[in-house]
Amino acid sequence: MLVGSTDIPPGMDYRQAARKGVAMCVSDFAAKGVKPDSFMVSLGLRRGTTQGQVDQLGRGFRDAEREWGVQMVGGDTNEADQLVIDCMMVGFAKRVVGRRGARPGDTLVVTGPFGYPPAGLKIMIDGAKAERRFREIAIRSVTKPTPDLKVGIALAGCLTSAMDSSDGLARSIHTLAEDSGVGFELDKMPAGEGVAEFARDNGLSLQDLVMAGGEEYVIVGTVSPRKLASAREAARLAGGQITAIGKATREKGRVLLRAGTSRRPIGDEGWTHLR
Amino acid sequence: MLVGSTDIPPGMDYRQAARKGVAMCVSDFAAKGVKPDSFMVSLGLRRGTTQGQVDQLGRGFRDAEREWGVQMVGGDTNEADQLVIDCMMVGFAKRVVGRRGARPGDTLVVTGPFGYPPAGLKIMIDGAKAERRFREIAIRSVTKPTPDLKVGIALAGCLTSAMDSSDGLARSIHTLAEDSGVGFELDKMPAGEGVAEFARDNGLSLQDLVMAGGEEYVIVGTVSPRKLASAREAARLAGGQITAIGKATREKGRVLLRAGTSRRPIGDEGWTHLR
Repeated sequence: MLVGSTDIPPGMDYRQAARKGVAMCVSDFAAKGVKPDSFMVSLGLRRGTTQGQVDQLGRGFRDAEREWGVQMVGGDTNEADQLVIDCMMVGFAKRVVGRRGARPGDTLVVTGPFGYPPAGLKIMIDGAKAERRFREIAIRSVTKPTPDLKVGIALAGCLTSAMDSSDGLARSIHTLAEDSGVGFELDKMPAGEGVAEFARDNGLSLQDLVMAGGEEYVIVGTVSPRKLASAREAARLAGGQITAIGKATREKGRVLLRAGTSRRPIGDEGWTHLR
Repeated sequence: MLVGSTDIPPGMDYRQAARKGVAMCVSDFAAKGVKPDSFMVSLGLRRGTTQGQVDQLGRGFRDAEREWGVQMVGGDTNEADQLVIDCMMVGFAKRVVGRRGARPGDTLVVTGPFGYPPAGLKIMIDGAKAERRFREIAIRSVTKPTPDLKVGIALAGCLTSAMDSSDGLARSIHTLAEDSGVGFELDKMPAGEGVAEFARDNGLSLQDLVMAGGEEYVIVGTVSPRKLASAREAARLAGGQITAIGKATREKGRVLLRAGTSRRPIGDEGWTHLR
């Protein structure tokens, strides 16, 4: 469910919002390794919504249909105090990648960089400073997220556990740790290019941006060591890549980040609604 | 999608709202003759929502699970300016009762009385007067609607077209007329007991209450004359009944109500959002 006041920053239009409403579902399907078939959308529209805005929503849903090969099959329309776009997606699968299968020794992998969406929101909402190219990438990661559907489907047979990272990387890793009964030790933070500079220039915490931002719609998963090579190859053939950032340990529920010779705990930070 | 400001009148609690969010979907499945299997719910919650209210929502979803034999399998939670409950339901069917199959000569049937929910809303929102028993029935039709799922499934093989009546009886009849390329001639309005008195006592139009109110969650459908007897029997065995209120004609798109020897047109009245 995408809600205007919470999820649509200034500068994001209705077409982008509609596409993003679908992207949020596609991201979950990608992480579960399931090809989506169709989706339904319930819309809450403000009184005063223009025909132009409704057309934009339609275009955004078409964008999503083409981009991910899914079909909009129904939905509902209602009146609300703010724009609400709720998408539900259906697909059929014999196997779904779960959250409980990570075993000590598994490699922790991600399918993309982290930190762009929280940086983009800082730029769009708070006017944070950024160089032109970084600014474009960061804003685009908010307005036009691109979940790795092909990569997720290609990886399905290799992952022992996975989920998407819409609520932040630390949250995803902690969830996999708890559900699988393992811990994780990270040897790096998968920061996107320029995120460290952006953090420094704006007096922000790099770790917050990378670990606790959210909305990356990137897959966070685990691979058993004997399947790591084939997972890399599968991701590559699907036009993406995986990056190893750590490994699963026996220390249940503990998530540590190695920095030099020391290891410091990473809390279960991330987006919690209504906190 | 059920939205606080539009769909939840004063006096309706969170448990009832949650159950009703599911009931709205069940009603569509009933009209299509399909047994629902599972549902997902996206919630938009106001900041300040209490634990007690969340518990009530949970109880309402449980009520729905038990009542209609469906299972909640997932969903989403978000923060919103008002309560939003969006339910999407999934079922599997070889055949779905459509809206295009009505033929001239088919009997127009409904599975229940009309006028209680609009009367209930008048009572709950505007303080309209009503006798105690009528008041209870009318309010209950708003807070605890009971779509005819068993009856709908039992009727599936008999109906040539059908839809639910959540946007009002006139709207449903006009939609079936347009989609099937027929007209309808009604020989009566299926007013619930006491609705005429309620209309008179409150200076309201009986026709508006019965034809243009909405939220009845009753099935409006057509049956070919040779199947009418078996449709009646099927509905009876499922614990309900059908009432014949008119028949399909060759006058495309025209909906007429016979009153004595004259016939007057019924417009496409009903609930249109954002009008």
